[in-house]
Amino acid sequence: MTGLVTGPVRKAAIIGGGVIGGGWAARFLLNGWDVAVFDPDPEAERKIGAVIANARAALPALSDTGLPPEGRLSFVPDIAAAVTGADWVQESVSERLDLKHRVLAEIQAASDAPVGSSTSGFKPSELQQGARAPGRIFVAHPFNPVYLLPLVELVPSPANAADDIAAAQDILRGIGMFPLLVRKEIDAHIGDRLLEALWREALWLVHDGIATTEEIDEVIRLSFGLRWAQMGLFETYRIAGGEAGMRHFMAQFGPALEWPWSKLTDTPPFTEALVDRIASQSDAQSGHHSIRDLERIRDENLVAFLRALKDRDWGAGRVLNAHDRLLADRLPAEAKASSATPDVANETELLVLPGWIDYNGHMTESRYLFAGSQCVDQFLGAIGAGIDYVRGGHSYYTAETHLRHLAEARLGDRLTGRVQVLGHDEKRLHLWISLSRRDDGGEVEIATIEQMLLHVDTGAGRTCAAAPGVLARLGDRAARDSRLPRPDAAGRHVGAGRPLPGLAVPA
Amino acid sequence: MTGLVTGPVRKAAIIGGGVIGGGWAARFLLNGWDVAVFDPDPEAERKIGAVIANARAALPALSDTGLPPEGRLSFVPDIAAAVTGADWVQESVSERLDLKHRVLAEIQAASDAPVGSSTSGFKPSELQQGARAPGRIFVAHPFNPVYLLPLVELVPSPANAADDIAAAQDILRGIGMFPLLVRKEIDAHIGDRLLEALWREALWLVHDGIATTEEIDEVIRLSFGLRWAQMGLFETYRIAGGEAGMRHFMAQFGPALEWPWSKLTDTPPFTEALVDRIASQSDAQSGHHSIRDLERIRDENLVAFLRALKDRDWGAGRVLNAHDRLLADRLPAEAKASSATPDVANETELLVLPGWIDYNGHMTESRYLFAGSQCVDQFLGAIGAGIDYVRGGHSYYTAETHLRHLAEARLGDRLTGRVQVLGHDEKRLHLWISLSRRDDGGEVEIATIEQMLLHVDTGAGRTCAAAPGVLARLGDRAARDSRLPRPDAAGRHVGAGRPLPGLAVPA
Repeated sequence: MTGLVTGPVRKAAIIGGGVIGGGWAARFLLNGWDVAVFDPDPEAERKIGAVIANARAALPALSDTGLPPEGRLSFVPDIAAAVTGADWVQESVSERLDLKHRVLAEIQAASDAPVGSSTSGFKPSELQQGARAPGRIFVAHPFNPVYLLPLVELVPSPANAADDIAAAQDILRGIGMFPLLVRKEIDAHIGDRLLEALWREALWLVHDGIATTEEIDEVIRLSFGLRWAQMGLFETYRIAGGEAGMRHFMAQFGPALEWPWSKLTDTPPFTEALVDRIASQSDAQSGHHSIRDLERIRDENLVAFLRALKDRDWGAGRVLNAHDRLLADRLPAEAKASSATPDVANETELLVLPGWIDYNGHMTESRYLFAGSQCVDQFLGAIGAGIDYVRGGHSYYTAETHLRHLAEARLGDRLTGRVQVLGHDEKRLHLWISLSRRDDGGEVEIATIEQMLLHVDTGAGRTCAAAPGVLARLGDRAARDSRLPRPDAAGRHVGAGRPLPGLAVPA
Repeated sequence: MTGLVTGPVRKAAIIGGGVIGGGWAARFLLNGWDVAVFDPDPEAERKIGAVIANARAALPALSDTGLPPEGRLSFVPDIAAAVTGADWVQESVSERLDLKHRVLAEIQAASDAPVGSSTSGFKPSELQQGARAPGRIFVAHPFNPVYLLPLVELVPSPANAADDIAAAQDILRGIGMFPLLVRKEIDAHIGDRLLEALWREALWLVHDGIATTEEIDEVIRLSFGLRWAQMGLFETYRIAGGEAGMRHFMAQFGPALEWPWSKLTDTPPFTEALVDRIASQSDAQSGHHSIRDLERIRDENLVAFLRALKDRDWGAGRVLNAHDRLLADRLPAEAKASSATPDVANETELLVLPGWIDYNGHMTESRYLFAGSQCVDQFLGAIGAGIDYVRGGHSYYTAETHLRHLAEARLGDRLTGRVQVLGHDEKRLHLWISLSRRDDGGEVEIATIEQMLLHVDTGAGRTCAAAPGVLARLGDRAARDSRLPRPDAAGRHVGAGRPLPGLAVPA
């Protein structure tokens, strides 16, 4: 098995497909695990395939280091085949305790692997009842879509060893998740307790004719939903307390707890009439979108939110950045070196990473310049004007750039960048960078970048002559490059082709 | 009064400052209303000034048409001075019914204007008790930060005339809000009923030692918070039901209502010990950020989410787009046609984010081009070649770019991008983008970007003529921009200054 991840490829067994099992399968697969799925539903392969297709469109767009090569996906005819040799088993069957007990017994008859249950409601001690190895079973409760939302509630019982739970956390972090260790087991853990409370109140509002499903959804997504995507309940209320903080907020709003605001003292009668009302209101609200459309819209929005949070290193964005660092640390030394290795001909090898592409799979415009900068950084290192030189208070700054886009690049393309010195003096440096991608047929030039750089004293903030050693190496390099053919398009300006009507207007 | 808004400038009276009153003041002001504030707190002017400063940093970054000129802000010594001549009165005093009755009586002694109350808990019929003109009083309950979150719950009682409520909705839409008309008055309306339910459950979780405030916040913002920023409860669950939809979801999860998941049958004892526990947990979680920092972080995240939703015309983004159209419709005909009027629609506001800077704290070279792309995306949206057009199989692709770096930008700098059409034909588009940062002394141009774009049939992968509607809007825009001075540096090539030794080498 080739790949960037050190050590052998690991195997996850997914018992029970559906939306949750499929989401787990996608997370493991895209993080380089082999995945074996068991689900007796003859439609399971199709359904899980759809979830994995969604994940492939979304998850790579969040990575700035590149995910490891995908693992192998297989569908197997029984639980034993799925769990044999597995390093992790994830159980996502229906929420019936007797069924879960039967499935867990079958898993443990064939495997000693840790078993995470996706249960929304059951406590780990309930799942462990009658098990051969109760200490290997715990709750690992994710949220839909599992391949994008980082949270997993990791709930042990006293039967679980602390070391085993720590190892489970490491595995979940390795697939980009945030394993929140729940301190005490409790029905429905934390997230679903909160959701259940709000859900009951929402059902009352519909039941009593106060609001429709659409009106309730508008209330949520136009107000506190936007707050909660980045801060939770308490941090938001801390702000509401103003400079006086949380204690002030509690003093101001605590008494409302005693008011008769809520009908939460009972559950609404769950009648056929209530189900009818909700289903028909939901049709009116969302029926013009297929479920497939809604999934795509949801995932595009989530990717946009998550990338925004990543740029800010905040909330879910911090989880993603930590995962990037984890993946980068795992690159073997030779892979790190080869990801941007200069050879004698001054070539830079680059890989088009997920963070470089837009949602349509094309390399984003500004990433062409980013790739060019990588090549120039490497060139500057080679002439002695690298990071240490910059730390010493001198640097080459780019003054201007002319960038021509000649062909597209896509996720996973391998690019070669070549730098040619077109001219220089003691302060100025005129460079030509050619970017190509390798193709079945050979190389295709995808962009050229012409740049003028100025040598600056960064402390004083003005241009100055480069250090003699730098100028000497630059002179050698320039002499060699002067023997190369000068690029035809050097010195070209924007719009040098057929004149446009607007160009005829005198300045 | 000059301005883009037709008709006389309107006046809002803000009775009661604080975070909510200040947020209302900011919304009205930035939407061109004059605002008079009454609050007996001697600190009111400072506190409201801080809220308005936050709003000025955030709200304009969401507008693609430009907001009207700010109204005038005044602080007045009594209620009568505030409400005299007002077209809208917003009451945001403390949640005590006797106090609200006294304030409402004083308001109605001096004004017949509609009076919206920001009350979280009281029903409009309670507020109307004993009023001179009960039909002029209603609930208009916003969410913090009022200047960014679009929702306002508009709750009438039977005493309110339908026409008056419709007029109130128009006014609220005019300041960019989404007035949700609540069908029946109820304690705490809709949003706070939902919040109260979740808040109670969260207090139980802390009370019982299941989770800390930080753990609860992580649960929310790493899972359902991200879902709810874009879809609400019911639409999210509709997806969870899969192809079978809402009815299937209800059948699957409805029975959970009968389970003993929740302790919602009672409120947790609101003791000093519970307040202490929450306040100290909140300090441990968020105490390293000042409230001012948290507000800034929250607002920057909200702006990023809202812009992402705006690009997709989804959720809160639809409200913002509708507000843009409303403002565009209100431009007087002469302003739309006149080239003398500065074109507000071609400005893009950008913030230099942590992900944009290098280790020296400078904006990375390629992010200048990224910022330019953001401006061009907005421009393309304005001429009808935005995301929907791209989904339809046509797009403008950049062919070449000339980028000049003129000054540095750093983390947190606010940038303004302006696009000027230099030329076009049916397939080509020649643009000039100027990027500036705002400084104490005014604006500093940090970069210019000259681009040639080609219109392509993305399926066929070749250039073709743009759609007639796009060409028409582009023609209008080009005609207007042709009256602007042509940038001196347009058409410049790299190294156009003093010749370099290397340049003398023949190609």
